[in-house]
Amino acid sequence: MTSGFKTVASGTITSPQGFLAGAVKAGIKSQKGLDLGVLYSEVPCAAAGVFTANAIKAAPVILSQRHLHGRSARAIVVNSGCANACTGDSGVADAEEMASLVAEKLGLSLEDVLVASTGVIGVSLPMERVRASIPQIRITRDGGHELAAAMMTTDTFAKEIAVFVGAEPGGFTIGGVAKGAGMIHPNMATMLCFLATDAAVDADFLQLALQEAVDASSNMITIDGDTSPSDMAVILANGLAGNEVINDSNGGAFHKALGEVCLYLAKCIARDGEGATKLIEVTIDGALMETEARLAARTIAGSPLVKAAIHGSDPNWGRIVAALGRSGAQVIETKLDLYLNNVCVMRQGNPVPFDKKKLRISLAGKEVFLRLHLNLGEDRATAWGCDLSEEYVTINSAYTT
Amino acid sequence: MTSGFKTVASGTITSPQGFLAGAVKAGIKSQKGLDLGVLYSEVPCAAAGVFTANAIKAAPVILSQRHLHGRSARAIVVNSGCANACTGDSGVADAEEMASLVAEKLGLSLEDVLVASTGVIGVSLPMERVRASIPQIRITRDGGHELAAAMMTTDTFAKEIAVFVGAEPGGFTIGGVAKGAGMIHPNMATMLCFLATDAAVDADFLQLALQEAVDASSNMITIDGDTSPSDMAVILANGLAGNEVINDSNGGAFHKALGEVCLYLAKCIARDGEGATKLIEVTIDGALMETEARLAARTIAGSPLVKAAIHGSDPNWGRIVAALGRSGAQVIETKLDLYLNNVCVMRQGNPVPFDKKKLRISLAGKEVFLRLHLNLGEDRATAWGCDLSEEYVTINSAYTT
Repeated sequence: MTSGFKTVASGTITSPQGFLAGAVKAGIKSQKGLDLGVLYSEVPCAAAGVFTANAIKAAPVILSQRHLHGRSARAIVVNSGCANACTGDSGVADAEEMASLVAEKLGLSLEDVLVASTGVIGVSLPMERVRASIPQIRITRDGGHELAAAMMTTDTFAKEIAVFVGAEPGGFTIGGVAKGAGMIHPNMATMLCFLATDAAVDADFLQLALQEAVDASSNMITIDGDTSPSDMAVILANGLAGNEVINDSNGGAFHKALGEVCLYLAKCIARDGEGATKLIEVTIDGALMETEARLAARTIAGSPLVKAAIHGSDPNWGRIVAALGRSGAQVIETKLDLYLNNVCVMRQGNPVPFDKKKLRISLAGKEVFLRLHLNLGEDRATAWGCDLSEEYVTINSAYTT
Repeated sequence: MTSGFKTVASGTITSPQGFLAGAVKAGIKSQKGLDLGVLYSEVPCAAAGVFTANAIKAAPVILSQRHLHGRSARAIVVNSGCANACTGDSGVADAEEMASLVAEKLGLSLEDVLVASTGVIGVSLPMERVRASIPQIRITRDGGHELAAAMMTTDTFAKEIAVFVGAEPGGFTIGGVAKGAGMIHPNMATMLCFLATDAAVDADFLQLALQEAVDASSNMITIDGDTSPSDMAVILANGLAGNEVINDSNGGAFHKALGEVCLYLAKCIARDGEGATKLIEVTIDGALMETEARLAARTIAGSPLVKAAIHGSDPNWGRIVAALGRSGAQVIETKLDLYLNNVCVMRQGNPVPFDKKKLRISLAGKEVFLRLHLNLGEDRATAWGCDLSEEYVTINSAYTT
């Protein structure tokens, strides 16, 4: 993390004051392990969320959007193994019952509970297991790690972080947890990402800050180009840090720290893409407009041909330029400079000779940096993705069977 | 082929009268075999072309667009193994020299010769081999098969067809040849596709008919979502069939036959996608607008998660609905019907129970049909793609090394 805030050791979503979490093994996902969890704030929270732009919305997305209408919430219930998407009216009823069971357990009103589900689409939740399991969830102050585990599907590691912002006293903590690892190409939203802070934050400002943080992080990652109907990012702010309420006049440090937390989680997701062995960072410099820089960076990070070449440490850079060309961004070929891990392979549209063997060795590392300078304007953007491996196909050719 | 025209046995690009072709092994591609070929018409031709919408255009695309300005041409020279793209001014000079060598060999003017190249991007053509090889190309009346072979890169079979339209006398022949098999997601253009006919066709009508045929065929296939800078479809019409000149008042049969030829070649390309084992046909019915039906069909055909599921014969149909939802087409979830190989798995937005084992067996076939009825309007579209296999990744992780 950059300066101005510091990473909390073993930080998680329950690192901020007043947040508790826990999870159980309900038997919803076929893999072993936790699959149903709850996050809870001891006091009321300002809340904000951004949700999938997919025209098909999972039942929990529909319900949580409705419950967030009042810009407040106190709990989130999440399961993995079943997305409760494409499940019709009964799916929405199931999501509502999940919220209701948690509200009852914690003495909250129904609208205080948000719901998130991730897993197979088109299958109904095994509600008997949900009903039997929710009362068994034990929530504790260090239960964030359990919640992170309960959200995982094909993720190979839990994605968690917490940062402490400012000085004591007067400082506050932001914690976050996210899950990937397939159907990742967030569009005006994100995969599942939960954030909690003990800062007191104005609800309108919270929504704005979350949207901006997501736009620069989750919305700039791609694993396979497929936007999920279940995407959601939600933040709860309970104010227990006792700080002056943060709004757009004094929100700089909060804004920046939230951005870093979201970016960290987004990069974790990209790094842990299904079958991935490398993180790919694509930077577009010198664009005429930021929207075009974003589009170009994301198109390149999403190109299966670029991803497969990087997987093989093959400096087949023509594919990067080809993906740029189809991205829709304004491009003048004779102005393009291209760098692979800081090695210039194209200058002003012409190939530059390079040491192929040396570059292959460099591309074999765990992080690969692609940088294109369009030399047209001042705008820039960065996107993150992962390589495309045979393992991705193997995972995804037998997901439900 | 449908009625009104008949497929010519062993038909190829030289099946129409007055077309000759041939190829040599110039040593441009590392794989063994033919890699440099020429198509030639004994008499002047009306000509039309559509080219890649990629902002990065290969040198042969720039040159051929220029040469097609007068709507006439008599020869095409094509090589595989090197795309001559991202090669700067010297790339355009190389393409022009290729055209010039062919013009000299055949006694044509420079503008009569079109150029196409396919293969690795960012590498210059080995011009000494080109210079030495062009004079050695022997063109013959049955040389179309050689031309088809010379265009292949990772293609596993040549893509050729010829159809005879109408009755003798008065009928005419259309021949075509195309190549795939990666970086295939044509956008207002196509991969390499050459067409020849001995029909007399008005040049303006020819351009229109080609554009429409390509829109319904090549522009509706996708292998990996990557649009190539080298895409081009070109048709030459030499009039040797002696028919009345075809224009928009009498062009129905020609139009239809050209559409079928382009469709046949496009489906060959989809079927032969890199690493592919199956052809996937996606039909969207009941859309509000044809543009939306096209967008939805192509998005689904291009979804890596859908493609990987089909590869594993996994009836994981939620991915199809998720891809529809992110396509941008207007969708009302509660109106959706979805069929996999004619088995209904979703009706009016609700899952329909089906025999999973039976559907798995059916999905194991060489052709898989996905049909979504949006139940919103009257428009429809069909797109074609292929499954995503581990082999695709293997091919593309070591293409230049």
